[in-house]
This record gives sequence, structure tokens and C-alpha cells, in this order.
Amino acid sequence: MTDTGTSPAHWAAVDWGTTHLRLWVLDHDHKVIRQTKTEQGMTQLHPTEYEATLLDLLSQELQPNRAMGVICCGMVGSRQGWQEVPYAPCPTLPPSGERASRVTTKDPRIEVYLLPGIKQISPPDVMRGEETQIAGFLSRNPQYDGVLCLPGTHSKWVHISAGEVVSFQTFMTGELFALLCKESVLRHNIGATGWNDEMFTNAIDDAISRPAAIAAKLFALRAQSLIATLPPEAARARLSGLLIGLELAAARPYWLGAQVAVLGDTEVAQAYCTALTAQGSPVTVTSTERMTLDGLKSAYTALQEMTK
Amino acid sequence: MTDTGTSPAHWAAVDWGTTHLRLWVLDHDHKVIRQTKTEQGMTQLHPTEYEATLLDLLSQELQPNRAMGVICCGMVGSRQGWQEVPYAPCPTLPPSGERASRVTTKDPRIEVYLLPGIKQISPPDVMRGEETQIAGFLSRNPQYDGVLCLPGTHSKWVHISAGEVVSFQTFMTGELFALLCKESVLRHNIGATGWNDEMFTNAIDDAISRPAAIAAKLFALRAQSLIATLPPEAARARLSGLLIGLELAAARPYWLGAQVAVLGDTEVAQAYCTALTAQGSPVTVTSTERMTLDGLKSAYTALQEMTK
Repeated sequence: MTDTGTSPAHWAAVDWGTTHLRLWVLDHDHKVIRQTKTEQGMTQLHPTEYEATLLDLLSQELQPNRAMGVICCGMVGSRQGWQEVPYAPCPTLPPSGERASRVTTKDPRIEVYLLPGIKQISPPDVMRGEETQIAGFLSRNPQYDGVLCLPGTHSKWVHISAGEVVSFQTFMTGELFALLCKESVLRHNIGATGWNDEMFTNAIDDAISRPAAIAAKLFALRAQSLIATLPPEAARARLSGLLIGLELAAARPYWLGAQVAVLGDTEVAQAYCTALTAQGSPVTVTSTERMTLDGLKSAYTALQEMTK
Repeated sequence: MTDTGTSPAHWAAVDWGTTHLRLWVLDHDHKVIRQTKTEQGMTQLHPTEYEATLLDLLSQELQPNRAMGVICCGMVGSRQGWQEVPYAPCPTLPPSGERASRVTTKDPRIEVYLLPGIKQISPPDVMRGEETQIAGFLSRNPQYDGVLCLPGTHSKWVHISAGEVVSFQTFMTGELFALLCKESVLRHNIGATGWNDEMFTNAIDDAISRPAAIAAKLFALRAQSLIATLPPEAARARLSGLLIGLELAAARPYWLGAQVAVLGDTEVAQAYCTALTAQGSPVTVTSTERMTLDGLKSAYTALQEMTK
């Protein structure tokens, strides 16, 4: 990674997930020169297509006499990704540059590293990508001791102590919400947008007080739309509240009486905050985009230390 | 419905659901002459296409000088079906011929009636089609007092007393199972077929003892497949057990200490029996195909009494 060129572009950071890819080009001082987001996620790519995808995305910056360092986190390192990188077993520090795996590339202008995810043997659980967000959070909050909540397709609750991921639990909440909205019989009754705070917080309470009845409460959304009046945006807020409430009921050991930071900049992260606050658990929220990039910066710095 | 023809075909019974249609042609003594099943369910048909579909399916039997009685139950009577038939509010006897609505048809050779479903105001719930299975069950078991369980895409628990549907509750269990198997991230790990009894009953216990954790237990199926060995058929049995167990946890007031009859002739109905038996609740199982036809026969008989 010796720099003989004139471009200020020094390295690239990539958050390479299931459905999307986010790439940042940075200079020597880790200042972002350019960033882009595409839909070239893992599900769109055959293992042989990752290198060409990177070369294409970096074509403006690559130089003939220099190998640009590229560090990636996320599903790119899974069995269905570019190359499988074995999980680090928890408890563990969030995997950084020392744990990255070099991928063999044909083009000498790139030098690509993939970060591993974390696995937990019992109860069985895995993460890929979130560990880098966590590393980013910890790089800014090195003394943090408490719980992180990472809402998303597969939301995670993570117990952090002494800088380590001690334990974690994943919930399919986001994916269930999407499937029920788009693919189930409820699609006729759930609005694509819109919200109703009261419906949401009532549904949270409802799910927490009787979590087992979730499959009946879901069908009741349809019944209510048919025999009474349930506006589509109210149905959407209630569905979200039922599913997040169900998750909170099971995740209680994580949040009850604990310091919780919600990582996320989405409407959903906001909904988690509303829900936790309503349950009497004060929370802070932090943007994850910055966290992921911060985690990738830490990993790149560690990698440079090693290859010095 | 005066019979001037020579064909033994006297009337037709139709179970017209969301995805399928099942039609029986019967003689004057309610003996089945012919039966057929097609995929011309509600989702395949525009309201204007129902009449032509029936005429086509009955073309062998229709006669120029006689209007053949046709009685239908199911989603055909819903807002998205042929013509909306308002729900009967529960508690109610299962709607029979007296509650059927005549549909206007252009062709004089058919005289079509649609049976209503049942609605429950609180908690909000609806059924369309199952009420006719219930009527069929009650025609053979007129003294039955207890609980019916109708597994399916939207499984129903029904409290029957004095011949009436007193209350009921619908669970989206079957639809959740299908969505998770086919559309979710679990599709990579769940077998399309195969079974493991021990995994199934363990999952039932697991879900009943900690129902709130369902969204985490679902993701753990994926994690277990990635970091340990979970054969696809075992994953399938566990997924089914988790979802049915969740339902049983919420439906406990229905089955605990009660007489339960499971209506269904599917692998799923058998799974419900296994699960209930394992929970110490003895059950009986009865075929639903016969039940639906029996219910439609009762309805037709009642209709004839009225129009005599």
C-alpha cells in the first residue's frame, strides 16, 4: 500500500451487505473524498463478480502503480459471499484489522480485506456487519458498558463490557414486518407509509402483556379492517408495535435497568426509542452510517499497524 | 329448481376459497356423481368471471329447461369475491341455507347461492368457509359441546355450545410457516419436506415455555444451520413446532381441560394432534373434506325447505 500516485484517494471502506453496498473513498487522513451506495449486494452477485464490481466502482481512483487498500465488512464475508471468513467466537473484542482476511484478487491495483462476523455458540447466534458498527461505536465511546440495540431486518441486542461483545441476541422482527406487510394477507390492510403514535404504543403494551397471542393479534388486524374501521396507517403502526413489543418482551433481560444505546438513523430506530422510553427505559440514539465507517477506519488503522 | 331433465345431476356444492375451488355434482339423494378441484380461486378471478367459471365446470350437467341449484361457501362471498355476503355475527348457529344470498346470474340454467361467513366483534375476528365445515361436523355430531380446532393457513379455535359458534380465534400460523419457509432468510435452511418428531415436540415445549422469544428462536434456526449442524428436515420440524407451540400457548383457554376435535386431513392436522397429545390434551381428528360437503348438503336441504 505504498503511495506513489497523485490522487488524494488512499483507501476504500465498504459496507457490503445482503442487498446493498456502501462504499467510501478516503484520503490518507481518513477524510471522505467520495461515497456511493448501490444495490450490488450479495444476493445480486456471483462470487466471481465481486472483484469486477469493486474495480468498476473505484475506476476513477485506481492507479497503475499502487495497490489501494480496500476493507469490507458484512455479508461479503459469508458462505454465500465473496469468500467465507470464519466468525470470531464471542465473548470477543469486535474483530478489527488483525482479524481481517486477505482475498486473492487478479488485479494488482487493489488489496482487499474482509472482516469476520461474530458467532455465539449457545444460544446459537451470528452477526456480520453489526460488529463493525459496534467497533465504530466503541471507538467513540471506549468506556461504554451496557447494552446496544441495533434495529434492522434482523435486530440485535448486544451486551458490551470491557470493550467486548459479551453476548447477543438476534430477532427477525424487521424481516417479519416486511413479509407481513408485503406478502401476507395483511398486505390489503397495511399502509405502505403513515403512522399513528397512539396505536403504536398501545400495541407495544398489548404485545408485552400477552406475547403468545401474536399470531392471533396479527389476524385481528385483518379482521378489524374488514368488520370495523382500521385506517391503513393505523394498521401499519399497530403491526410495527406488535412486533417490536414482542421483541421487547423477550429482550427485557437486556434493557431492564440497563444503559441502552440504540444505533440507527431510521424511522424504525426512532420507533424502538419511543417504545423503550414508554417502558420507562431511557435510551440514546446514534447514527449507524457514521458508526460503520468509524469501525472500518479503526480496522484499516489496525491493518496498517500490522503491515508497517 | 324443478327437475324436468333426465340427468341424475340435481345440484352442485362448491367450496370456493382464496386459491382453490372444489366442486361436487350431486344427485337428488345427495350422492356425489362427480367432483373436481381447480385453481380457479378468488385471487384468480374478476367478479365478472365467476359465472362463466361455473358454467364451464358444469357444462356436462346443465340442461336447457332447468335451473340447477348451486350452493357455495368460502371467499367467493367476500368483498373481493363474486358478491359480498355480510357476515353473521357470533354467537350464531353456523349459517345455513336460510342465510344464503342469491347471486344474479345471466344464464337461466343455474341458480346460485352464497353462504355468509361469521364475524366476531370483540376481539375482532372473521371466518369464511370454516363455518360450513363446522356445520358439517355438527350435522354428524349434533350434541357436540366443546372446542373445534381447524388447522390451516389461518387456523381457527372455535368454542361450540348448544349447536352455536360461541366464540372463536384465528391464528396466522400456517401463513407464517409458509412465508418463513419460502420468502424469509430461513428458506436456505428449511427443508421443503421431511420431519423429525423429537425436534417438533421439543420446539412445542420451547415455544410454550417462552413464547415472547419467538422472533429470536426463528433467527436461531438460521444461526444453528450456519455454525452447527441442523439438517433441513429437522429445521422444518422445529419451525413448525415453534409456530404451533406459540399458537397453543395463546389458545390454552380453548384446549385446557376441554374436549377438542381437530378438523383436517393434512400432515398439519396430524402435527396439531401430536402437539396437543404431548400437552396432555386428548383429541380426535376428522377429515374436513367430508365436513365441508356435509355442511353444504345441510345448507342445500334448508334452502329447499324454504323454497318449497
